[in-house]
Amino acid sequence: MILNDFSALMLPAIELELKRQIDRVNEPRTRIFHEMFTYQLGWTGEGAGKEAQGKRIRPLLVLITCAACNGNWKTALPAAAAVELIHNFSLVHDDIEDNSNKRRGRDTIWMKWGMPQGINAGDALFVLSNQALLDLARTYPAEIVVKAAKMFHETCLDLTRGQYLDMSYEKRTDLTREDYWPMIGDKTAALLAACCAMGALLSEVDEATQEAYRAFGHYLGLAFQVQDDLLGIWGDSALTGKSTESDLVSRKLSLPILFGLGKEGSFARRWSEDQIRPDEVAELAEQLAADGARLYTQETADQMTDLALQSLRMAGPKGEAGEALFELVNKLINREA
Amino acid sequence: MILNDFSALMLPAIELELKRQIDRVNEPRTRIFHEMFTYQLGWTGEGAGKEAQGKRIRPLLVLITCAACNGNWKTALPAAAAVELIHNFSLVHDDIEDNSNKRRGRDTIWMKWGMPQGINAGDALFVLSNQALLDLARTYPAEIVVKAAKMFHETCLDLTRGQYLDMSYEKRTDLTREDYWPMIGDKTAALLAACCAMGALLSEVDEATQEAYRAFGHYLGLAFQVQDDLLGIWGDSALTGKSTESDLVSRKLSLPILFGLGKEGSFARRWSEDQIRPDEVAELAEQLAADGARLYTQETADQMTDLALQSLRMAGPKGEAGEALFELVNKLINREA
Repeated sequence: MILNDFSALMLPAIELELKRQIDRVNEPRTRIFHEMFTYQLGWTGEGAGKEAQGKRIRPLLVLITCAACNGNWKTALPAAAAVELIHNFSLVHDDIEDNSNKRRGRDTIWMKWGMPQGINAGDALFVLSNQALLDLARTYPAEIVVKAAKMFHETCLDLTRGQYLDMSYEKRTDLTREDYWPMIGDKTAALLAACCAMGALLSEVDEATQEAYRAFGHYLGLAFQVQDDLLGIWGDSALTGKSTESDLVSRKLSLPILFGLGKEGSFARRWSEDQIRPDEVAELAEQLAADGARLYTQETADQMTDLALQSLRMAGPKGEAGEALFELVNKLINREA
Repeated sequence: MILNDFSALMLPAIELELKRQIDRVNEPRTRIFHEMFTYQLGWTGEGAGKEAQGKRIRPLLVLITCAACNGNWKTALPAAAAVELIHNFSLVHDDIEDNSNKRRGRDTIWMKWGMPQGINAGDALFVLSNQALLDLARTYPAEIVVKAAKMFHETCLDLTRGQYLDMSYEKRTDLTREDYWPMIGDKTAALLAACCAMGALLSEVDEATQEAYRAFGHYLGLAFQVQDDLLGIWGDSALTGKSTESDLVSRKLSLPILFGLGKEGSFARRWSEDQIRPDEVAELAEQLAADGARLYTQETADQMTDLALQSLRMAGPKGEAGEALFELVNKLINREA
């Protein structure tokens, strides 16, 4: 439970740093503009609180990695805020692009303030995340700040490219499992890889170690996404809860679904015919499992987890923070929802 | 006509640098993603060419200012690309937010590729502009790059705040001329101010000179916008061309309109009643002029131009590049469309 201790120590510092960053737009003239960000970060509005804030996995990864490299995690706080803000920027825009009304059980920004203000609020989160990152210049030499900024924007480009691929896939019927990896590599793994690489960079360990941490974050991200895909079809809320939460209904091109389409059997035929109805979800999930999609997805998640653990061992994390990273892998991978 | 000589020299270099920056997403897998940017920059698609590219005023301002400070404008090219990309980012998102179908006579990105891809393409332009800026690290010391990046993001925050104000004004009926300045200061003047300050920073002149150039760009931006407001009501295309181009029809809260509303006379009554019809435009424009709005707006534009010229003299620009800056002021201010 060392991870819990680190979370208890770091989370309040992360929230404080986020508040400080958002305060840049806290002026009487832009009161509602500021409120959009405090709402998005889960501090204000209906349903505010822990649940609405999310788990802050990304900033925690930055800080714990930094600590596991014997760095001073407190000086890395601006970078932790930056990755959480960029994550929220992408959520705000994704919700508009995907036409999603709800996020973590609450109205999305664009539902509350309209689409135009939603786009602009996302843009501002992007800017604020950059400003957070540049605050590293208070304690780090300019060379390190420039390196961090370059790494950050390579990641942001990955995010937008991944989102482009994801949206361009929607209309395609010829996709295979090979199209899956570049998309989730860019959309999910790139940011987790950057969190770990950033934490290492800010502890000023050598480049080989930074790369090992980047690989750790990358495989952790892939494992996380594949596990997410598994739960999206065979998880409790996908099967027995509101079955509209099933990826079968939302037509997400997840790994098990691409596997099923590759079989070109009855699942692929049913998929190409028409929208899947919620009442078919249980039966189709069973059919996919019988085709081998569940086993394949589980094995892939395990493989990615092994690669993550291998990379982490290679990076050689130090002390209790190192133990916390191993614990984090298990927690993310063995989750049920 | 020294300005023309500088344009002829610098514009091809700007286009080349922009192409190089956009090439980051030029891969077979993201062919259409890349095409969105070459289209937006006016190089490809129907209507490609000079007209579609726009005037590239912002990158020219960076480079000519740099040259006027005896700096090497060629090393400032990444910053020139960055300001043009950020300008285009804001156009792409503004067009979605304002529901505009056309830009420079062509379909807007979101009309061509849909709203979700349009939002994401704008985000990618934002990232690309940051990556362009960070390319300054090839020739400049990291301290200068960090300064440039901070300046850049303060400006980006201004842009999003200005856009927030602009959109939040749409529903308000209590606006006065005092609400005008912060909005156009953020939306228009901030980026021109940053272009000049950036050009000066990259020539490594002293901070007082950098500030003088910033003030020059700021007042130039204000003068430009006020002149734009004047043309939006009394310009040829507003009056005699397609009168739907009149700010009276699009209900833009421009300076002459805010002046007219402040008079609380027959213009204000007509404005608050209902949408203005194209066939009323000529008469209402005349009425506004009779109320003194045209004179007031012209005098304000002249005042701002004087302040721009005063700041420019204070900055003490050198050589032919300096002359080109004075020429640029006259060209922007005396334009008829």
